[in-house]
Amino acid sequence: MYLGIDLGGTNIAIGLVDEKGNIIVQDSTPTLGTRTADEIIDDMIALAEKIVADANLSKSDIKAIGIGCPGAVDNQKGTIVFTENVPFSNFPIFDKFKKHFDAPVYLENDANAAAYGEYVVNGEGKNIFVAVTLGTGIGGGIIIDGKIFKGSNGVGAEIGHTPLVLGGVRCSCGQKGCWEAYASVTALINQTKIAIGEHPESLMNTLFKERKVVNGRTAFDAAKQGDKVALEVVNKYIEYIAGGLVGIVNIFQPDKVVIGGGISKEGAYLIDPIIDYVRKYDYNQFFEPVKIEPATLYNDAGIIGAAFAAKNFL
Amino acid sequence: MYLGIDLGGTNIAIGLVDEKGNIIVQDSTPTLGTRTADEIIDDMIALAEKIVADANLSKSDIKAIGIGCPGAVDNQKGTIVFTENVPFSNFPIFDKFKKHFDAPVYLENDANAAAYGEYVVNGEGKNIFVAVTLGTGIGGGIIIDGKIFKGSNGVGAEIGHTPLVLGGVRCSCGQKGCWEAYASVTALINQTKIAIGEHPESLMNTLFKERKVVNGRTAFDAAKQGDKVALEVVNKYIEYIAGGLVGIVNIFQPDKVVIGGGISKEGAYLIDPIIDYVRKYDYNQFFEPVKIEPATLYNDAGIIGAAFAAKNFL
Repeated sequence: MYLGIDLGGTNIAIGLVDEKGNIIVQDSTPTLGTRTADEIIDDMIALAEKIVADANLSKSDIKAIGIGCPGAVDNQKGTIVFTENVPFSNFPIFDKFKKHFDAPVYLENDANAAAYGEYVVNGEGKNIFVAVTLGTGIGGGIIIDGKIFKGSNGVGAEIGHTPLVLGGVRCSCGQKGCWEAYASVTALINQTKIAIGEHPESLMNTLFKERKVVNGRTAFDAAKQGDKVALEVVNKYIEYIAGGLVGIVNIFQPDKVVIGGGISKEGAYLIDPIIDYVRKYDYNQFFEPVKIEPATLYNDAGIIGAAFAAKNFL
Repeated sequence: MYLGIDLGGTNIAIGLVDEKGNIIVQDSTPTLGTRTADEIIDDMIALAEKIVADANLSKSDIKAIGIGCPGAVDNQKGTIVFTENVPFSNFPIFDKFKKHFDAPVYLENDANAAAYGEYVVNGEGKNIFVAVTLGTGIGGGIIIDGKIFKGSNGVGAEIGHTPLVLGGVRCSCGQKGCWEAYASVTALINQTKIAIGEHPESLMNTLFKERKVVNGRTAFDAAKQGDKVALEVVNKYIEYIAGGLVGIVNIFQPDKVVIGGGISKEGAYLIDPIIDYVRKYDYNQFFEPVKIEPATLYNDAGIIGAAFAAKNFL
């Protein structure tokens, strides 16, 4: 049995994962990111211990513990180097765990861990597998020959911070025009709000008033009901996703790409036009086209990926 | 001794390369790409035989032959699958060579071969090495752990066909706004011509009239002499190069990037502002910054890279 931990800005989610990648028990606790790093990790360890107890296991049944963490991590030193929304700076997380668990701990960037989870379940046997997660930002993970690709310093695979429209919309990273600034769900919400402002007659505005919120579904829901302005927003958004993905495909020529995040629940409505666009502009016109599919694990990807990274890379 | 062959749209360049990567003898012959594939390869083989004779060697002294070729190649089948400017379509080049040489032949995409040449000379020991060649298009090559990265189907690493300004200038690949459409030398020449049209008073126009040609040097030469319009062209062009490079760096986090093509002779004038820009926007703010340097081999990169690919990968 393995413990997979997904440390997020909002919640710490932990699962007990078996050898086949099934989550046996899982639970979560709020991160409350304004607390100290020690307080947060104490809660994490307490929840991990609770889950082991809930499963009627003892700590010695845990073979390894994997932790997916936002930002930059150093698995050699066992430290969380830096995270933006949680107060970690060169925090020695391995030392903390050693006081409570004998099992070895493996530390991975959260987007890489989630990508690896999708790979374990949806990509086994693929030489080159890319997971793109559309959420607050764009998270990416690239698995090459079964290993997580992360560049020479461990912080590579930041596919969200490749240019899409250089000089365009400002990105959280400081650059203008990153893929993330156009194709994340945050970007879609901004695009939806702008369209509502310009076209108050749009069904999107009605949905906004009913639901009291503009979210990633607003434009999709209105477009499916035939609203023309919403359809424009959706088509443009899909083009942003697909345009950036063409670049990733032209670099990696993966066997398979999965697109994750809540938005991937739109299924074929989202994925089919992306497939068409990539097929049209993909530089590979001679070989089998890349497979592009919705991701399937949603929030479990980080737990399973962290657990399996610990299982396979320790 | 190894033979390295660089099959280009204009010339076939061949060199005899020693174990250390030095070119002992080299020569070239026009490709004359409107001829049949057989005629072109007959000329290639004749030139290879001539070079061996010129060096007072016999064919049995050649341990391996490497060929860099534009477009898609299949080293397993020994065929040139497709090239755009030379008439090859599933052409069995290994079979042709076998009739004349006992040495095994290795086939590689020309941009990959050139990148590997730069790696052999300038990147040995680097885990992740990226070569960007700015020319008619943008050629790229990525060396990971000593191997040429080319995706699951052999046609990856097409870094020139990643988006820079999606929906912008039309690219030769059919998409609008590829990095190549902004940062290749072809793009620079177009940008220079447009600026001359808009500002006939610019020194660039004087240089054009003197030299009867607008080329990759026109804007750089005028900018160095203080011409403001030319300086704008150069600054914008450098931003196009650097903006695309940030994306590549954020994905690969390479140990080293070399920038090649004739334009790299501009040296620090070109490279220093690229370094500054990438350092500013690189997602890696915690570790050693990526090294960015001009490539050094120019036209020899393809010969040395093809020879060493044959030496090391056969």
